[in-house]
Amino acid sequence: MTISRLFIANRGEIAVRIIRAARELGIHTIQAYSEGDADMLAVKLADEAICIGPAPSKDSYLDIAKVVAAAQQTKADAVHPGYGFLSESPAFARALAEAGIAYVGPSAETIERMGDKVAARQAAEAAGVPVVPGSKGRIGTVDEAAEVAKTVGYPVMIKAAAGGGGRGIRIAADEAELRKLAPQAQAEAQAAFGDGGLYLERAVQSPRHIEVQILGDGETAIHCYERECSLQRRRQKVWEEAGAACLDNETREALCASAVALAQAVNYRGAGTLEYLYDSARNEFYFIEMNTRIQVEHPVTEMITGVDLVQEMIKVCGGEKLSLTQADITRTGHAIEVRINAEDPLMQFMPWPGKVGAMTLPEGEGVRFDHFLYEGYQIPPFYDSLLGKLIVQAPTRTEAIAKLAAALEELSLEGLKTTAPLHKALAADPGVQAGDFHTQWLEPWLEAGNLTKATTGGAS
Amino acid sequence: MTISRLFIANRGEIAVRIIRAARELGIHTIQAYSEGDADMLAVKLADEAICIGPAPSKDSYLDIAKVVAAAQQTKADAVHPGYGFLSESPAFARALAEAGIAYVGPSAETIERMGDKVAARQAAEAAGVPVVPGSKGRIGTVDEAAEVAKTVGYPVMIKAAAGGGGRGIRIAADEAELRKLAPQAQAEAQAAFGDGGLYLERAVQSPRHIEVQILGDGETAIHCYERECSLQRRRQKVWEEAGAACLDNETREALCASAVALAQAVNYRGAGTLEYLYDSARNEFYFIEMNTRIQVEHPVTEMITGVDLVQEMIKVCGGEKLSLTQADITRTGHAIEVRINAEDPLMQFMPWPGKVGAMTLPEGEGVRFDHFLYEGYQIPPFYDSLLGKLIVQAPTRTEAIAKLAAALEELSLEGLKTTAPLHKALAADPGVQAGDFHTQWLEPWLEAGNLTKATTGGAS
Repeated sequence: MTISRLFIANRGEIAVRIIRAARELGIHTIQAYSEGDADMLAVKLADEAICIGPAPSKDSYLDIAKVVAAAQQTKADAVHPGYGFLSESPAFARALAEAGIAYVGPSAETIERMGDKVAARQAAEAAGVPVVPGSKGRIGTVDEAAEVAKTVGYPVMIKAAAGGGGRGIRIAADEAELRKLAPQAQAEAQAAFGDGGLYLERAVQSPRHIEVQILGDGETAIHCYERECSLQRRRQKVWEEAGAACLDNETREALCASAVALAQAVNYRGAGTLEYLYDSARNEFYFIEMNTRIQVEHPVTEMITGVDLVQEMIKVCGGEKLSLTQADITRTGHAIEVRINAEDPLMQFMPWPGKVGAMTLPEGEGVRFDHFLYEGYQIPPFYDSLLGKLIVQAPTRTEAIAKLAAALEELSLEGLKTTAPLHKALAADPGVQAGDFHTQWLEPWLEAGNLTKATTGGAS
Repeated sequence: MTISRLFIANRGEIAVRIIRAARELGIHTIQAYSEGDADMLAVKLADEAICIGPAPSKDSYLDIAKVVAAAQQTKADAVHPGYGFLSESPAFARALAEAGIAYVGPSAETIERMGDKVAARQAAEAAGVPVVPGSKGRIGTVDEAAEVAKTVGYPVMIKAAAGGGGRGIRIAADEAELRKLAPQAQAEAQAAFGDGGLYLERAVQSPRHIEVQILGDGETAIHCYERECSLQRRRQKVWEEAGAACLDNETREALCASAVALAQAVNYRGAGTLEYLYDSARNEFYFIEMNTRIQVEHPVTEMITGVDLVQEMIKVCGGEKLSLTQADITRTGHAIEVRINAEDPLMQFMPWPGKVGAMTLPEGEGVRFDHFLYEGYQIPPFYDSLLGKLIVQAPTRTEAIAKLAAALEELSLEGLKTTAPLHKALAADPGVQAGDFHTQWLEPWLEAGNLTKATTGGAS
């Protein structure tokens, strides 16, 4: 089939991103919106738009029946789920299939399988992808957990087999702690997911978060190299890079080959990301999970490879084979993305939805700003606080940081508080400049008052 | 010397571009502005700004004494001239040298030499660069012109040896016409430049305009490949590409090598452009002139090579050697730039300076918009009508045209009339899509009413 009418079941900057990709492919775009989003930029840019319900997400963007009905009503032949909302819902993919509408992403079965951490880990191991030393299957009892932990080695992480997003993870330093924490984790998993199953993993010390971008057409899979997203706050990425400066080329190639092996093993279709922990002391990487959708940070990969990932997703959904081979994918320079959120980083990142006043946006060589702002736009309070993503590319990482700092200096959004001051302070930090960080680096840095020091010390 | 304070002796989008480049290099920026430009974006973005006189260019941006005095007063150690205004004035470069201020560009001698068409052509011939068959030196009499034309072959172009920008060019189909036109050209050249000298060149049929980007540090010169700018109206470029789709790789390499030979021969320092005519029927290229400054269309080269040309200019001005070797310069994909002018293309391109209302600007993968707009900005009527340059890059020329069309669809500048409808119509034209055009293509296309047809035929 050829996709000629694409329904966008998302909002914010990613909706704008998808409209652009579709438009370049000559595809008619239909934008879904909630009552709280009637004046968002994607509604203005799309060829047509349809209201799918009240502002709360559960009554609109998360309501499968409403979204499918709207896609049918507007005669869409495919739906792009974006990220978040229904983007990893097998039920949504199935409902669309039953309605005869294509889903821009992998099959419901693949979403389901890779969404279950235990199943995903088993698939990874079967494909020869290294995983964090841990339990081989789901663990039902505390005694079993204690036994497995002896082999895995302390400290161990206790996780729910179902679920995601880092919820309910506990770390036990020894067996006594494990015996205290495991029942809590079981009860919480039971309450949250209706499934008290656990699994254990070695707690990697000072890990770095590295992920590999995959593209597949159901038969062939290729990688578009890796990203590093180690600067995180509350397990949310705040600063992302492509490539990972800490990897040597041999490790990079092995990492990327492992990701292709897994994607190939599950006949992956669409864009996906395999997330890994990287233990820089041991130079070892461990698969942790797969995201079966486009990711927020995909632009850094686009900047260094020149591949339009969203267009590729749409094309393979329409039944095309990948137009690119692995040999076509090359890396040029270094790219960094920072998330500009409507939050006050000096006030515990309190959300700050406001009305957009005069805007000055960075532009120029190697600068990209994916956003959904316009002057006079009132940021609705119902959704996440991402306003836009500032992405830069330069020949080297050092130059990319300088470009980022200059672009942040240029960015001005009157009427809003944003996380831009955090990124300015990070760009000026010697640790960030040296690439010397890991996933537990940013929170202590913030707690130590570094941001306050930077913003009162002259940086603006 | 190290440049730490850069004075920007220009306005509009190129001033913004230079500020960005300097900021990324950690250089303090000082923006010159006329009384008509007090609220322009570059004034807001620069670290400091200084008024250099009344709005008319001759009293401010073209007034060498005022610009040099302002640079001295603000303790600038270098001046970037941008394009236009004083960017090819040997007198300006000399005045700065006398004031002990560096000029971001070549020496006054090089500007002078390459600014004289006859001298430039002689330098080219000496460096082995092909030139249009024509007179070997300046021609003083009509009889001499008639004699030379016999060797060159009709039709011949009659040009002033001094001057530039295409003024006063005449084409003679035979000797009778030459004898009629040459005295007029002499008189006009005498009146305009105080120099009645002429030269003759073969009038190449359906030529394409191709130019090569050069970077030099005074010792070494390299090229950053070519651009094609054949879509012109009244000898002004309106649509520019990198690379030139009509060239095979062998011709491309020969063309670029010839440009390097000339740049090397004159010990070129800074960014420069050698302009050529390309005769596609004969697969021959002829040097026509050199621009000893950054050009409006430089971003398409930046998009395909990843080289920041403005930063390179500044670095070599500060005495650094080129940080790039020829082997570092590679081409990725295809880029197109279109000029968004404040003109009504449906009303004979009448200038349309207005107040900028609500803006929606294109963004995203492979899209760059270099501009100096903000909402509420009143475009001053004193200067050229360039509002911004929309630049796109994609893996292939066909994809780049699709991306350009999508980006133009997204661009909305309330309160202004712009040339965007022209570019939409061009992007949809089979001749443009096939790359089947030359420097005399666009004007007949416009005269035939193609733009009116396109804009009333459903394209918006």
